[in-house]
Amino acid sequence: MTAFTATDHAMMAHALRLAERGLYTTKPNPMVGSVIAHGEEIVGEGWHQRAGEPHAEVFALRAAGERAKGATAYVTLEPCAHTGRTGPCADALIAAGVSRVVAAMRDPFPQVDGAGFERLRAAGITVESGLMETQARVLNRGFLSRVQRGRPWLRVKLATSLDGRSALANGESKWISGEASRMDVQHWRARSGAIVTGAGTVLADDPQLTVRLGDDTPFVAPLRVVLDPGLATVARGRVREGDAPTLYIHAPDAKPPRGIQAQLASVPVREGRFDLDAVLRLLAERGVNEIQLEAGATLAGAFLGAGLVDEVLLYVAPVLLGERARPMFDGLSIDTMAQKLRMSIVESRYLGQDVRLLLRPESNA
Amino acid sequence: MTAFTATDHAMMAHALRLAERGLYTTKPNPMVGSVIAHGEEIVGEGWHQRAGEPHAEVFALRAAGERAKGATAYVTLEPCAHTGRTGPCADALIAAGVSRVVAAMRDPFPQVDGAGFERLRAAGITVESGLMETQARVLNRGFLSRVQRGRPWLRVKLATSLDGRSALANGESKWISGEASRMDVQHWRARSGAIVTGAGTVLADDPQLTVRLGDDTPFVAPLRVVLDPGLATVARGRVREGDAPTLYIHAPDAKPPRGIQAQLASVPVREGRFDLDAVLRLLAERGVNEIQLEAGATLAGAFLGAGLVDEVLLYVAPVLLGERARPMFDGLSIDTMAQKLRMSIVESRYLGQDVRLLLRPESNA
Repeated sequence: MTAFTATDHAMMAHALRLAERGLYTTKPNPMVGSVIAHGEEIVGEGWHQRAGEPHAEVFALRAAGERAKGATAYVTLEPCAHTGRTGPCADALIAAGVSRVVAAMRDPFPQVDGAGFERLRAAGITVESGLMETQARVLNRGFLSRVQRGRPWLRVKLATSLDGRSALANGESKWISGEASRMDVQHWRARSGAIVTGAGTVLADDPQLTVRLGDDTPFVAPLRVVLDPGLATVARGRVREGDAPTLYIHAPDAKPPRGIQAQLASVPVREGRFDLDAVLRLLAERGVNEIQLEAGATLAGAFLGAGLVDEVLLYVAPVLLGERARPMFDGLSIDTMAQKLRMSIVESRYLGQDVRLLLRPESNA
Repeated sequence: MTAFTATDHAMMAHALRLAERGLYTTKPNPMVGSVIAHGEEIVGEGWHQRAGEPHAEVFALRAAGERAKGATAYVTLEPCAHTGRTGPCADALIAAGVSRVVAAMRDPFPQVDGAGFERLRAAGITVESGLMETQARVLNRGFLSRVQRGRPWLRVKLATSLDGRSALANGESKWISGEASRMDVQHWRARSGAIVTGAGTVLADDPQLTVRLGDDTPFVAPLRVVLDPGLATVARGRVREGDAPTLYIHAPDAKPPRGIQAQLASVPVREGRFDLDAVLRLLAERGVNEIQLEAGATLAGAFLGAGLVDEVLLYVAPVLLGERARPMFDGLSIDTMAQKLRMSIVESRYLGQDVRLLLRPESNA
């Protein structure tokens, strides 16, 4: 185990904050931050901004210039060793003459996966990894999920009443949560690679599922995905309006209506229900790191029941909707206390009158 | 509007903290604290400890002795002017020679209600009232409710899952919340004048409804009350065990089983349901300031639906119990968003893995 100094920790914490600036724009790439320093003196810093543009190390080295020589480079992810849309960062670090590279974690991406560290070591550079790795993994949980599990990180966004209801009996859900919560949702949408909903929600709420940040914050628009076995909603809806792309996932035997220009993909259906594993694999293959599910209790319950939910973003409004209203998750078969589904509260905060909880099912926690 | 100084505020804040020491023991009397001071120098302090024992001012005057002369006496409630189980405090303050009395609020109790202030003023003492009155009212919300509204302050205690469920479909509810929450409940029981439940809960859970603080904290045991129209549960149950008294409230036509020694009281029933207003009036007449309702969704929903709930003490455990489990409140007729029942969150805190919310229905907030 390498013993990192307090300065190492401070530099990596700074690099992680730099990385996070790419939250809305680097997808499908991971967020990466880099700091070049001599002891406590930072001589260059940078972060990856958009796929296709230079990596974090390149920006940091450019800023450091000649002062990179003999310096320590802190990176939140192993420097790449392959030529993708940009040249290998390991080579750039070697060429700049840094003497030590400290990484938060190894990059599991198959074309890197230790090769960056090897190339640096072969050039005589001291390489240490694992500093603040937990934080780095949380930051890129979407990218890591896609690369390591072959499926996106799945977040279920729900707005519920205190009595755990997500809509009235008639399906109405506008609005349970307050304005501050609804604005906050936009930020979670912006970081997502896809916003997934079901045909039922398209019919009931007709959501647009776009990102509305209301300021000059740049973001890469998430793919809007409608799970619609029979393509019943493909001809209508605000979900096709706006600039963001929309994908309809349908059953293999569905017939798209004539004259409809829409992205379509077919996924197997069993007993009338989509193979949700296959849905997630399909979206991972399309480069989706994080999914935000904004759907009704049936679809949310199906993903949860299948063990595919990684986190629940829950906006709890201080209202009661009564026992006839719709549940939070439908289709959970719980008959005994031993079957109760445990979550852990990762974070809680007030948003206006509401409370926002970020939860992880305990099996995934 | 009297202009109070920073010293006045500090002294009254201290008196309020002193008053709160009587939280578990003064019922049915209000909590009262008193500080005697010359400027910033406290020369005596005291609080009301138990009904029948001296009032706060008496303890504070005893501690001050001769130094009470010319001092300011801070009291969280108007000094009494009548001879109850103890002599009038107004007379004691006059006799001790204090020159100014600052009260947080007037005492609405019919035998006081301004008479204490009058007697002090008649003796030439400067009297000011209204300093930190809001806090003083919150502290004695139970006493004030009983005296001013003729019914106790009603708190509904509930333990629910994230999805707002208070028990499984089979009625099982042990345990939804964690140990820290269950210990915390004991403190809220200890401050209550009565713990009210229904026959259904006695049959399903067989709770003892006693206060178990597990330390040497003194408390006056709350009355245990079972709402049991037909006296179906009177012959059994842990609710009759232990030292605390137990009262069964029944329908006028109920026949108690022979040979049962139990406190009984009859309350009118309409269409099979108790007149809940009458239940509360009956308990107020018996000196209950605060009720803690620990019952199932039906009884909790009935009180809430009748607009009789003043606060909800909600322990939310980070678990899901599924859509078949029992609701938090049953019998709320909510069909449109406009009918949703709004609450305000007065306070929230973590207790182990759970979150405790203290809520007030907005009409009562």
